[in-house]
Amino acid sequence: MSTKNPFSLLLKTVSVAAIAVLSWSAHAEEQVYRLTLAETWGENTPILGDASKNMAKLASEMSNGRLQIHIDSANKHKAPFGVFDMVKSGQYDLGHSSSYYWKGKVPNTLFFSSMPFGLMTTEQYAWFYRGGGMELMQEVYAPHNLLSFPGGNSDIQMGGWFKKEIKSLADLQGLKMRIPGFAGEVFARVGASPVNIAPGEMFTALERGTIDAAEWVGPAFDLRMGLQKIAPFYYTAWHEPGSETQFLVNKKKWETLPKDLQVILETAFRVSAFDMYVQAIDANAVAWEQMRKENPEVQVRDFPEDVMNAMRTANKELLAELAQKDELAKRIIDSQDAYLKKVRAWTDISTKAYLETSKVE
Amino acid sequence: MSTKNPFSLLLKTVSVAAIAVLSWSAHAEEQVYRLTLAETWGENTPILGDASKNMAKLASEMSNGRLQIHIDSANKHKAPFGVFDMVKSGQYDLGHSSSYYWKGKVPNTLFFSSMPFGLMTTEQYAWFYRGGGMELMQEVYAPHNLLSFPGGNSDIQMGGWFKKEIKSLADLQGLKMRIPGFAGEVFARVGASPVNIAPGEMFTALERGTIDAAEWVGPAFDLRMGLQKIAPFYYTAWHEPGSETQFLVNKKKWETLPKDLQVILETAFRVSAFDMYVQAIDANAVAWEQMRKENPEVQVRDFPEDVMNAMRTANKELLAELAQKDELAKRIIDSQDAYLKKVRAWTDISTKAYLETSKVE
Repeated sequence: MSTKNPFSLLLKTVSVAAIAVLSWSAHAEEQVYRLTLAETWGENTPILGDASKNMAKLASEMSNGRLQIHIDSANKHKAPFGVFDMVKSGQYDLGHSSSYYWKGKVPNTLFFSSMPFGLMTTEQYAWFYRGGGMELMQEVYAPHNLLSFPGGNSDIQMGGWFKKEIKSLADLQGLKMRIPGFAGEVFARVGASPVNIAPGEMFTALERGTIDAAEWVGPAFDLRMGLQKIAPFYYTAWHEPGSETQFLVNKKKWETLPKDLQVILETAFRVSAFDMYVQAIDANAVAWEQMRKENPEVQVRDFPEDVMNAMRTANKELLAELAQKDELAKRIIDSQDAYLKKVRAWTDISTKAYLETSKVE
Repeated sequence: MSTKNPFSLLLKTVSVAAIAVLSWSAHAEEQVYRLTLAETWGENTPILGDASKNMAKLASEMSNGRLQIHIDSANKHKAPFGVFDMVKSGQYDLGHSSSYYWKGKVPNTLFFSSMPFGLMTTEQYAWFYRGGGMELMQEVYAPHNLLSFPGGNSDIQMGGWFKKEIKSLADLQGLKMRIPGFAGEVFARVGASPVNIAPGEMFTALERGTIDAAEWVGPAFDLRMGLQKIAPFYYTAWHEPGSETQFLVNKKKWETLPKDLQVILETAFRVSAFDMYVQAIDANAVAWEQMRKENPEVQVRDFPEDVMNAMRTANKELLAELAQKDELAKRIIDSQDAYLKKVRAWTDISTKAYLETSKVE
């Protein structure tokens, strides 16, 4: 074909123009949104740290690259407990942390991780998504220019490692235990001495007798801490029956995202949260099997009934005090309490009955 | 501004051309993929039917309308148990059903809904996603040009409604009960008479004494059947501790989708499955509360130990027979068995211990 044909030349010119316009248009439509995320956890923390990575990968794949999330661990930003403030101010767009870390700053954030004698993981998800929990959580975070979403569950937390067996409430008097936060307050009210010790110092403190007991998370997280080697009594759960982490979002930034990317992001939060829970169940099962093999001297114990009763009463008193001080706290406590009564009646005749009667041999 | 300025006219012409090209380009990039889905359930079946609707809505929103899924209920396609064949042949692109419905056609599909004395819902999700379950499921479905994904859990199923209390294995001899499928085979092996009766005829059959007992699902599904009004003994779970539905996909159709839409679809499956589980927990809790109020004569019972032991033995025998006949069946059974032993040891010291000691007052 001759290129000297003027019509051909015209076609070529139009084509070039069209291609230019096309690529500009493709660029406009595929605007890339770059978000930053600060996590409370140190670099490559297993399970907790996987949630953000899975979420970012999923968001990128589902958006065909239009949503790019850069993650900074605490090793980078140096402020593990500054995540709330950094996302609120817009220094970061997103955060991955846990709600109860902010109770010193905003007391009502306490209620959205896990409460002593409260909802188990699946019961709590039902409360979040079907029982009004999400709405109450947004009510707490909205005044701080923040949205909060469930960020993955680390499964039921064990009651901790004890050097000596606890046979009655008397054995708890003055007992020094590493147990922080609200659970520590409950523990103090029944006569024990909660101590706050950095995770890195727990093993030495327990070994040297500076403390008598320590709680961390569950087998998957506890294994590497080595507490099972020096404190053989492993107590069952009471204080965190389903510890949920959180994804925090800067609300103003959120509002700049197109609708489809908002849905993609929210769905990526939800799936990676659920995946973290599934991963924690599996990791706990694997770690518990390993612990039993390597440390057959480990003995699982339930706290005696008088200890459980005293802690339950102390927990109720502390919640009643919070409810009296603040109207929103009261509404959250009442909502959780009513939901727990309703859902646990079902859990008791389903999950509990099955676990008690089905026996695995 | 004068429109007679030739430069202005040129600009106008270019603008019009650019807009035309732009809208053509937007159209090309936003190719709409239309998929059809056949569900086993009748129109507007609560919970089971919500899973597909939620999934389709989410897929559409996340893809900004590029993925459009049209759902036909069984009222439309008239073949509730033809979903496997219709998706395999490409008559439909997707299906929502339950794996064990296909055991007459492909025996190894039995293992991916719920097994007697088997994994609970959360344990089973851990097996699917972390314990090799997904890979085994694809191995069963791949020869049929199908992919299968968890499609939502209806929560633990109750053991059914009985007119008379079962006090020992003797009371089960010749007892006529509506209990279909593999659980029915176990039931037959311990001396009872399983009967297959259409859901719509269950109430009348139980009322007239044609049958002595009937299982359906759990409170949320059982409530409307009205069985609680005529058979007051409600037995706890043994045969379906975590009934998972499924999304079926025509594999050839799947391969025509761009990568981002595959990830969107798979994620929409996963989130809507998880949501169905959460919805079922909540609905069971609500319905169980209502049942207890309206029918205070209802009494929850565990099967006596000799009944549970006999059914457990029968279940093991039946599984051993399946394993002997088929190599893949053996691998699936062994995988579930090993995973159950490992994960239940953890469930026992976490969930079970917490439910036994934490008391809700």
